[in-house]
Amino acid sequence: MAKDNKKMVEQITSMEEDFTQWYTDVVKKAELMDYSSIKGCMIFRPYGYAIWENIQKGLDARFKELGHENVYMPMFIPESLLTKEKDHVEGFAPECAWVTVGGENKLTERLAVRPTSETLFCEHFRDVIHSYRDLPKLYNQWCSVVRWEKTTRPFLRTSEFLWQEGHTMHETEDEARAETLQMLKVYEEFYLNALAIPAVTGRKTEKEKFAGAEETYTIEPMMHNGVALQGGTSHFFGDGFARAFDITYTARDNQVRYPFQTSWGVSTRMIGAIIMCHGDDNGLILPPAIAPIQVALIPIAQHKEGVLDRAAALRDQLKAAGLRVKLDDGDQSTGWKFSQYEMKGVPVRLELGPKDIENNSCVLVSRVTREKKFVSLDNVIEEVEAMLAQVHSELVERARRNLSEKMTTATTHEEFLDAAENKPGFIKAMWCGDSACEEQLKDETGGVKSRCIPFVEDHLSDVCVCCGKKAKHMVVWGRQY
Amino acid sequence: MAKDNKKMVEQITSMEEDFTQWYTDVVKKAELMDYSSIKGCMIFRPYGYAIWENIQKGLDARFKELGHENVYMPMFIPESLLTKEKDHVEGFAPECAWVTVGGENKLTERLAVRPTSETLFCEHFRDVIHSYRDLPKLYNQWCSVVRWEKTTRPFLRTSEFLWQEGHTMHETEDEARAETLQMLKVYEEFYLNALAIPAVTGRKTEKEKFAGAEETYTIEPMMHNGVALQGGTSHFFGDGFARAFDITYTARDNQVRYPFQTSWGVSTRMIGAIIMCHGDDNGLILPPAIAPIQVALIPIAQHKEGVLDRAAALRDQLKAAGLRVKLDDGDQSTGWKFSQYEMKGVPVRLELGPKDIENNSCVLVSRVTREKKFVSLDNVIEEVEAMLAQVHSELVERARRNLSEKMTTATTHEEFLDAAENKPGFIKAMWCGDSACEEQLKDETGGVKSRCIPFVEDHLSDVCVCCGKKAKHMVVWGRQY
Repeated sequence: MAKDNKKMVEQITSMEEDFTQWYTDVVKKAELMDYSSIKGCMIFRPYGYAIWENIQKGLDARFKELGHENVYMPMFIPESLLTKEKDHVEGFAPECAWVTVGGENKLTERLAVRPTSETLFCEHFRDVIHSYRDLPKLYNQWCSVVRWEKTTRPFLRTSEFLWQEGHTMHETEDEARAETLQMLKVYEEFYLNALAIPAVTGRKTEKEKFAGAEETYTIEPMMHNGVALQGGTSHFFGDGFARAFDITYTARDNQVRYPFQTSWGVSTRMIGAIIMCHGDDNGLILPPAIAPIQVALIPIAQHKEGVLDRAAALRDQLKAAGLRVKLDDGDQSTGWKFSQYEMKGVPVRLELGPKDIENNSCVLVSRVTREKKFVSLDNVIEEVEAMLAQVHSELVERARRNLSEKMTTATTHEEFLDAAENKPGFIKAMWCGDSACEEQLKDETGGVKSRCIPFVEDHLSDVCVCCGKKAKHMVVWGRQY
Repeated sequence: MAKDNKKMVEQITSMEEDFTQWYTDVVKKAELMDYSSIKGCMIFRPYGYAIWENIQKGLDARFKELGHENVYMPMFIPESLLTKEKDHVEGFAPECAWVTVGGENKLTERLAVRPTSETLFCEHFRDVIHSYRDLPKLYNQWCSVVRWEKTTRPFLRTSEFLWQEGHTMHETEDEARAETLQMLKVYEEFYLNALAIPAVTGRKTEKEKFAGAEETYTIEPMMHNGVALQGGTSHFFGDGFARAFDITYTARDNQVRYPFQTSWGVSTRMIGAIIMCHGDDNGLILPPAIAPIQVALIPIAQHKEGVLDRAAALRDQLKAAGLRVKLDDGDQSTGWKFSQYEMKGVPVRLELGPKDIENNSCVLVSRVTREKKFVSLDNVIEEVEAMLAQVHSELVERARRNLSEKMTTATTHEEFLDAAENKPGFIKAMWCGDSACEEQLKDETGGVKSRCIPFVEDHLSDVCVCCGKKAKHMVVWGRQY
């Protein structure tokens, strides 16, 4: 068994040796994705897509609970529509895929495959918003978007990716600001409770905010190697787009006014975050809330009479309790199966053999700690649920420890450069508010950028870590995917 | 109240007067969709999209129950990939939207926005199928596809539409043929039990089958006006694509073989079928299984003390029982609300006023028959569920009656032409098997085409209704959307 186990594991590069290669190995070997012949576009295989479906289900319920409704806009944006908001087009036009031929005719105006849909939503909002009675509009869309990326990496940066984009319109600035923050909180809660990922949240600097937004809020989980992944953003637009698209409504006081707007989104990058935050040298580790298989039921000595029957009954019992179980009665060796489900990150393994059946018990093994627990079949559901809950908290705990261990404080320029060079992770440091300093720090460090101004700022010193002028904010900095 | 009702209804053209305009009025006034500035692309508004979500939920559960897994393929197809299967490219290339520029560069090879994904699935199948152990592959994809249509109509024919496409690979021809038929049966069962639409099913003639398929099976519901809507198709490909894409596997007998393939799909056209099959001059009528709102709870004299509180409690009670309820406590008149939810096709209206509360009762009104029923609040859930079930069976019954009343039998050429001209609906007639006869009948009638060769054929006569030669099949004919 040990031998089999080893053989399987040898197929993945270790994290220590080469984190990037480890990542690539995991996404392939765990059968999450496959490459396609279209540059930068990936194939979501069943196991990878099932994770996305569970993410969708969890988020969609949260959005609807807060009154949001799903809609679907066209996937094409005429060039003239995309260019209506100046900052927005500058941000997105350079990375659009353009349709120039429809059927057998050259189009009179080329169409961008949507990189994001603010402009389409605005055009629709102009048609359906007339009075304060039509507000708020709380819309969300699940779709794929295209951004023509030069370098791509599965789940993290691909030319096409899947996401949700919320777009809302409100009577007042306050209401829109509250929505922007509320949706960031939804993301934060989901990252923590569903993905087992604690993260830094806060406001983006001017330089890093979304094209066309007044303010962008972000959630920034830290990967196991200390690198940040921008995990989701929520934007407050003020009435900028409303003015550009001439969206007005008759207010309660009978005045014609511009409504206030937000948008917010998370994408299949989340799957990348899960892999890089929780995975280990044996492969993926999936948080129970989104794991397509929560329990891998492995029969031991399955050729012996009664084993498979008892295993099937147990599977049905666990399924009936709402657990996602897979009974693997295939003809591969037990060791191969153990490695296989470890690789696939199944949170709990359940072993059931003739001896166990005799003793009315079974063995549970945690994917995180690999701890074995002998439990009675009389309360197997409670035991499995308890171990799943334990896996979740252990994942949160580990990620929290990683986040705090790899968080350095820098009060001087020297300290900052030293941390950037020698300490993988985030850096807390004061900043004057000038984009030039962000630019300089990025250049000096070969890529460390401001992640965000967190909601609660420590006062580390009075001066900017870069220029020494008066500090305005404490910023969390880091390299990113 | 009657006056209000009338005012609302005046906004829709009657079906008798102009069925096409009635359809357009309904999709707009019931707020199912809106037009976009992109030719042929529509916007799914919340109410329309919610119907699609319920359809997805129902179908997805059925697919998974049968062992299918969801995946996601890229939205782009390189031209060289699309052209690998000769018949397939001839069918689709003329109606593709082509991406020719990515980012700021002209692409070396243009990319079609997927019109359907057989080619992408084949490319992936070639990578993941090696042994009989890898079969069957039972995949499904939910996505949007693009076919550059010249004339478009909301839900029925649009340049972009939403759909599911199942793609499966099998060891044997028999297994693939069984899958093809099984999935048609799933569609048939779903049309009947979820959409309340009985339909004709059968095999497409050579002329009408899918580009690249050996056989195409179809479900053909009849709209209220007697016109057919191709409601879903299921294709058996044999090993044609497998050969074109060089997909092989090592069989149980150690021989290298080509696997056998199917694909099957239904789209947002289904929403068009629901509208045109069930709607009436007061608007939409939605089958309870997919209605976003199953019960519209309208408080009467809602300003009177206790009415809104009792209504809210009733709503919560119905919701807890799993019903989709909307309590409308807005400030519009009761009559306006009645018309509004009739227009939106909500199957059951529940009225609750001070008198009702005094009597511990409420009023249920069926959207189909408009029959009022006074029921006790003690068993309101059972009563609502019973009325929903009744609405479903009445819809099925009405649609079945329409289908049988508008089914004509023609045994001579003259009878066929007469039916085509004077009797809206389907025509049963014998056919020799020659495409030339199909072509001739279509030309002579201005559009009557073979819908399908039904699974059970009546023997109407010995000769083809067109050429008089020996008949091979009984075909159901009809005009189509």
